[in-house]
Amino acid sequence: MSTMLTIAETAKWLKSNNNYLILTHRRPDGDTVGCAGALAQGLREIGKTAYVLKNPEITPRYATYIDAYIAPDDYKADQVIIVDTASTALFPKNGDAYFNAISLCIDHHASNKFYAEYICLDSVAASCGEVLYELLLELVGSISPICAGCLYVAVSTDTGCFSFANTTANTLRVASLVVAAGAPHVKLNRKLFRTKTRERVKIESLIYAGMTFHFDGKVAIASISNDMMDEAGASEDDVDDIASIPGAIKGVLAGITIRELTSPKDCKVSVRTSPTVDANAIAAHFGGGGHAMASGFTCDKPIADTKEAIVEVLREFFPEESQQTSK
Amino acid sequence: MSTMLTIAETAKWLKSNNNYLILTHRRPDGDTVGCAGALAQGLREIGKTAYVLKNPEITPRYATYIDAYIAPDDYKADQVIIVDTASTALFPKNGDAYFNAISLCIDHHASNKFYAEYICLDSVAASCGEVLYELLLELVGSISPICAGCLYVAVSTDTGCFSFANTTANTLRVASLVVAAGAPHVKLNRKLFRTKTRERVKIESLIYAGMTFHFDGKVAIASISNDMMDEAGASEDDVDDIASIPGAIKGVLAGITIRELTSPKDCKVSVRTSPTVDANAIAAHFGGGGHAMASGFTCDKPIADTKEAIVEVLREFFPEESQQTSK
Repeated sequence: MSTMLTIAETAKWLKSNNNYLILTHRRPDGDTVGCAGALAQGLREIGKTAYVLKNPEITPRYATYIDAYIAPDDYKADQVIIVDTASTALFPKNGDAYFNAISLCIDHHASNKFYAEYICLDSVAASCGEVLYELLLELVGSISPICAGCLYVAVSTDTGCFSFANTTANTLRVASLVVAAGAPHVKLNRKLFRTKTRERVKIESLIYAGMTFHFDGKVAIASISNDMMDEAGASEDDVDDIASIPGAIKGVLAGITIRELTSPKDCKVSVRTSPTVDANAIAAHFGGGGHAMASGFTCDKPIADTKEAIVEVLREFFPEESQQTSK
Repeated sequence: MSTMLTIAETAKWLKSNNNYLILTHRRPDGDTVGCAGALAQGLREIGKTAYVLKNPEITPRYATYIDAYIAPDDYKADQVIIVDTASTALFPKNGDAYFNAISLCIDHHASNKFYAEYICLDSVAASCGEVLYELLLELVGSISPICAGCLYVAVSTDTGCFSFANTTANTLRVASLVVAAGAPHVKLNRKLFRTKTRERVKIESLIYAGMTFHFDGKVAIASISNDMMDEAGASEDDVDDIASIPGAIKGVLAGITIRELTSPKDCKVSVRTSPTVDANAIAAHFGGGGHAMASGFTCDKPIADTKEAIVEVLREFFPEESQQTSK
């Protein structure tokens, strides 16, 4: 069980120690990477030694924000910190050695498992970047342009450029303050939110072309086969957040995305719903689960059969609607 | 020539008059509509009579924010105000009678023609909504949830949910404050930024399928024929901001969108570029013009010939690159 620290107590602890190693979570996103970069930079600004553990799953999209802080192989840390990581199950693939060695966890997940010695947690924050902002202000006294850029990456990516439902007034307040502090938000927005790869465009086009609508347009089903991925030349980076596509169509209450796995006889299914439809209950029919508006399951059938099975189950959720299918 | 008023002077003028009619601009967007709704509501909150002139071009996307304030046919206003409108050329189609009758213009366009008696202008603001926020705070003393919702629509739509290059720290600050004041930003974001019509999805899919790349992928050309619009069942609402699509692809420095006009022998062309390519110079080759990064022209040729002519002209702008075309 961790000891909870306030922002002020966390800053005091950081000031009274030295030689930090900072960890990011598995499949690192903008929030964990931005926070790690900002914290390493902030600690260096007050004269501390601080490095970030290289994450074997880092992608080019985010590597640039921590490249300058990657720990050399022979680095010996006195204190290990992890950011934006709710449980040890989410530790990076090379993080096993740190399971019982985390001095401080800085996080915003209500589900945090309190595995670290100390924890600085704000479970209302939309992003860990919002926690880091307050912490760096306390620790350093001001936010440098480099910290501001990292924090902008953190808060903006975790909220879909402030468009996701988790965005709060405080998210926007912190974004405003880091932009004022010199975050290059125009360049970052263009890179993070306003640019698609040609492969992404191609796979989206194929997905749209094959999408079907059911139950008076209340259900949209998208399929992604390995052939489609090959045809588009798409990588995993190119299909980031692709499960949100069918659910973002006007009138759709349940957006289903069927992704063929390595074996063409197995599929992974993502379910995204509006508040009136229980995504968890849909997934439960197939032995899966998740949240009320986002769930998932796997199905040991080819895409076409998986789709048929899902439509069959959905009849229970949309009993009133005519059951025609359209493209 | 208009008399410039500060926020405080504008609020004082609004308090000392009554019976307002508020105009929005031609092809009304979220900024002009959100500002008109917020101003009408704010004026009513201090006991004034205020209505909005029905704009014949209003679309369902934005009508909801001013429906409650539409002026009855026999309404007689003492003072006419227009928001977010730089010149009389942008007056609504039913606005001719007001060309020389505008008491107050509230705007954020540096290009404002000073056609009104009084003007309250902040040419640094990304949206007119930011000006309205300050004005309503001064006028009413606080921002009601209804005003906050309208202002959120204004600032968020004019900045592409805070992702466009015009977004500033102040845009985000105002957004934060109106969310804190009760703007239903989650619902608004979902409606305004996270939902596409099926027709939009279909036309995007057709556009992506037919897009071609030139000059080592530095140029992307999208075409929209009337047949494609028919096939998708798409309306003008469905192709809003469609010209930004080719320019948003990674590596593309010039994104060209060719739109077939009513006659299949005429096309309208939009050019969107990165800072290193002069969109205005490209358009000038065809007798068109615009800005350094966004321009347009018309071409009296069918789509295929228009495309050929553009690629020919672009050779001058991309002399170094191999000139292959790919899909």
